[in-house]
Amino acid sequence: MSDSGKAVAPRSGVADVARRAKAASRLLAVLDAARRNDVLLAAADLIEEKRAEILLANERDCGAAAQMVSEGRMPQAMFERLRTSERGVSQMAAGVREVAALDDPLGRELSVTELDDDLTLSKVTCPLGVVGIIFESRPDVIPQVGALALKSGNALLMKGGQEASHTNETLIRLWHEAINSFADVPVDALHLLNTREDVREMLALDGLIDLIIPRGSRSFVDYVAEHSRIPVLGHGEGICHVYVDRAADLKKALAIAFDSKTQYPAACNAAETLLVHEAVAPQFLPEMVAQFRRARVEVRGCPRTLALARSREVIPASEDDWATEYSDLIISVHVVSSLEDAVKHIHLYGSGHTESIVTEDALAATTFLETVDAAGVYHNASTRFADGFRYGFGAELGISTSKLHARGPGGLEGLTTYKYLPTGKGQIVATYSTGERTFKHKRLK
Amino acid sequence: MSDSGKAVAPRSGVADVARRAKAASRLLAVLDAARRNDVLLAAADLIEEKRAEILLANERDCGAAAQMVSEGRMPQAMFERLRTSERGVSQMAAGVREVAALDDPLGRELSVTELDDDLTLSKVTCPLGVVGIIFESRPDVIPQVGALALKSGNALLMKGGQEASHTNETLIRLWHEAINSFADVPVDALHLLNTREDVREMLALDGLIDLIIPRGSRSFVDYVAEHSRIPVLGHGEGICHVYVDRAADLKKALAIAFDSKTQYPAACNAAETLLVHEAVAPQFLPEMVAQFRRARVEVRGCPRTLALARSREVIPASEDDWATEYSDLIISVHVVSSLEDAVKHIHLYGSGHTESIVTEDALAATTFLETVDAAGVYHNASTRFADGFRYGFGAELGISTSKLHARGPGGLEGLTTYKYLPTGKGQIVATYSTGERTFKHKRLK
Repeated sequence: MSDSGKAVAPRSGVADVARRAKAASRLLAVLDAARRNDVLLAAADLIEEKRAEILLANERDCGAAAQMVSEGRMPQAMFERLRTSERGVSQMAAGVREVAALDDPLGRELSVTELDDDLTLSKVTCPLGVVGIIFESRPDVIPQVGALALKSGNALLMKGGQEASHTNETLIRLWHEAINSFADVPVDALHLLNTREDVREMLALDGLIDLIIPRGSRSFVDYVAEHSRIPVLGHGEGICHVYVDRAADLKKALAIAFDSKTQYPAACNAAETLLVHEAVAPQFLPEMVAQFRRARVEVRGCPRTLALARSREVIPASEDDWATEYSDLIISVHVVSSLEDAVKHIHLYGSGHTESIVTEDALAATTFLETVDAAGVYHNASTRFADGFRYGFGAELGISTSKLHARGPGGLEGLTTYKYLPTGKGQIVATYSTGERTFKHKRLK
Repeated sequence: MSDSGKAVAPRSGVADVARRAKAASRLLAVLDAARRNDVLLAAADLIEEKRAEILLANERDCGAAAQMVSEGRMPQAMFERLRTSERGVSQMAAGVREVAALDDPLGRELSVTELDDDLTLSKVTCPLGVVGIIFESRPDVIPQVGALALKSGNALLMKGGQEASHTNETLIRLWHEAINSFADVPVDALHLLNTREDVREMLALDGLIDLIIPRGSRSFVDYVAEHSRIPVLGHGEGICHVYVDRAADLKKALAIAFDSKTQYPAACNAAETLLVHEAVAPQFLPEMVAQFRRARVEVRGCPRTLALARSREVIPASEDDWATEYSDLIISVHVVSSLEDAVKHIHLYGSGHTESIVTEDALAATTFLETVDAAGVYHNASTRFADGFRYGFGAELGISTSKLHARGPGGLEGLTTYKYLPTGKGQIVATYSTGERTFKHKRLK
C-alpha cells in the first residue's frame, strides 16, 4: 500500500485506496501533456539518482530469494527475473524516458462528423480511469507501467510479487517523490498493494476500477476473469506456429523457426509447432531437426515427420501435442499438404496469438495474412517480434489474445478509450424526428 | 434456427450452428467489399419485393400479441414496437442500403511502422468473427444487424423475441435468399435461434462466439454478463443529465431539457435529472417546471428547487431519485452552486452514458467536455442525439456504457478488431537482442 494508505484498516483498505485513485484519475485526465511528461522525466532522473538505493533493496529481495531457491521453494528462472543490475536500473530510466517521448495518446480526434449545420460530433481519446495490474517478480514493471499509466492519464493500483517487495517499495517511493515535485499532480495516482487479500478485494471493485491486467500464468488470468466483473486484459495461451511454405527460402525458414522456438522459449510468443509444406519437407526437415537437436530442443513429430527425420531424433507427437504450450525447449512438427491445411491446423489448435509464414510467394503470403485469425500474422519474420518494445510502444502493458479493446501487445492505446463530444447551438431531436430537418452526416475527419 | 439447421437435435444444436457460423465467418472475412455490399443490396431489394409477405407475417404476430395485450400479458408499448407497416418495411430496406453505402470497415490500415529496414508492421482492421445478438420484439432489428454483420464480415447468431417469430422468420428467409444468389457467400453467415434454452447454450460457447450483444433491460444484460465468459457489449443504466450553466441561453436550455426528457422517455439516452446553476435557477426553473407540468411530466426537486417552484407542481426528491433511471415522464431537478458541483453530481450518480451542458461560455463548455467521464459529453444539444443513426453509423448495434472496445452508440466499428501484420525478409529477434541491429520504429502512418 502507498505511504499515504498505511493508516487504513486492511479490511476496507483497497476500496478506500481505489476511491482515492478514482479521484486522482479525474485530475490526471485534465493535466496537460507537458505536465504528464514532466513527471515521467522527474521519475527517470530519480531512478538514476537513487540507483544505489534500488540496488540495495534488490539485494535484500535477492538474498531472501536465493535462500528460497536453495530450499527448492523458488525456481531458478524466477530468481533470475527478480535480480536487477546497474545496467538494469539504467534501462528502467531509459524506458520511462522513451514513454515520455511518445506522442500524447489523449485528446486525439479519431473522427469529426458534421451531423447538421452547427452540430458537430467529434470522437476524442481519453483515459480509462483506474487500472489494476498484478504481476510477478520482475522489478522493471513498476517503472514501465507507471510511465504508461501517467502518460495516458490513468491512476494505477499495482500488486507485485512478495519476493520483490523491497525493490517495488523503493520504486513506488521514487514515483511518489517525482509526483510530489509537482503541486498539481495527485500522489494518489499510483498505489502499491501488498497482499493476495488486497487483490481479492480489488477484483470486487467493479464500480471503481475500469480495467484489470493480470500478468502471469494462464490459470491466474482465468482466476481473475472468473472472479471479477471488471474487464480483463490478459492472454490465455500462446500456441504460436511457424509455417514453412512450399515457396519458402529455406535458409530464412531455418533461422526464423529456430529463433521463434529458442530465443526465449518461456515467452508466450515463442513457437510451439512448426508446420512444413510436404513439397519442401524432405529437404528442410532433416537439417531443421538437426539444428534443433544441437540446441537440445526435443522434437515431436507427426508420422510424416518421423519418416523424414532420423528416428532417434524425433519422438512421435500425440494429438495433445498440437494443443500444448510447452514454454520450453520442445517443438512439435507437422507436415501439411497445402497452405490451406496449415491455416486449418492453426485455426484448430492455435490460440490466436502470433502466426508466421515463411515464403517467397507474395500471393501465398497475402492469403495467409488475410485468412489467419490471430493478433499477429507474420510474413518472413520470427514470432518473437510480438512484443510492445519491439513494436515501438516504448513499454508493454501485456499481450492480449482477446479480440476486443486491445489485441496483441498493448501499450498506451490499451489504456485509453474515447468519448463522443457533440457541440451544437441548441439542437433538439424533435426537429429531426418530425422531418423538419434532416441529418447531413458529412465526415470532416 | 436457420433452414439448414432444422434437422439438428436441440441439445447440441446451438454449438453446431455456432461451429458452422465460425466456418462461414472465415469465408466472409476474405470476401471483397463489393461482394459484401452486393448481398446487402440484394436483401434490400427482396425486402421491398416481398413486402406483402413481411406484412402478413407481422399481422400474424400482431394478432397473437393483441390477444396478449387484451389479457394483460403484454404491455401496450411492446405491442407498438412489434407492429410494422408499409413505410416500416421501406425503412428497413433503406436502412440496409444505407449500411451498404458506408465505407468498408475492413482492411483499413490503422498504422504502419517501419521497425527496421525491410521489416514493416502494419495494423489492419478485420472482423471479430461470430457475434451473438439477443433482442426483443422490434422487427427492424434483423435487417439492421444483418446488414452491419455482413458489411463487416461477421457471422451472426440472432435470437429475437418469441412475439415476433413469424416476422423474424420471414426476414431471415429473405436474408438467406439474398445470400444464396451469390455462390461465394456462405448461407451459414446468419442464423436465427429460437428458444431461451438456445440462448443459454449460446452463452457457454466462448470458444466459438467472439461477442454477445444483449439488447434489453439492465437485469437481462447483467444476467448475460454473469452467465457467459464471452465479452459482452451492452449497457447498464442510462442515467443522463442536462446541466443548465449560469451562462446558459435559457431558451436553448428549455428546449434541450424538454427534448432530452420527453422526446422518447423510455430511451436510455433520455435525461433523468436536470441540474441548474443557482444563478439562473430563479429565472429558469418556474418556466421549465411549468413546461414539464403541461406535458404531464412529474417533477421531483431538491429543497432549493421546491423553494423556487410553486409547491403543488414539484414533489420533494429523495436520495434515491438521483440514482434512478425512470424511463418515464418523471424528472428530478437539482440546483447546484457551480459547474464543479454539477460534475461531481454527475460522477456520483451518472451511469457514464450521455451528459449535456447548456452554456454560452466557451470555457465552461470546454471544462465540462474535458472533465465529464461519459460515453457522450454534449454542449448545447439534446442527450437524445446519442444514437447510431443520428451519429451517422447507418444502423445501431446497441449503446455501450463500457469503456472498453466500443463506447457509446456502436455501429460497424463495434464489429471489427484489428491484427498486426509484420512483413520482413527473414528477420529474427536474436539479431536485436545481441545488439547487432537496433530498431528504427519510424512511424510511416
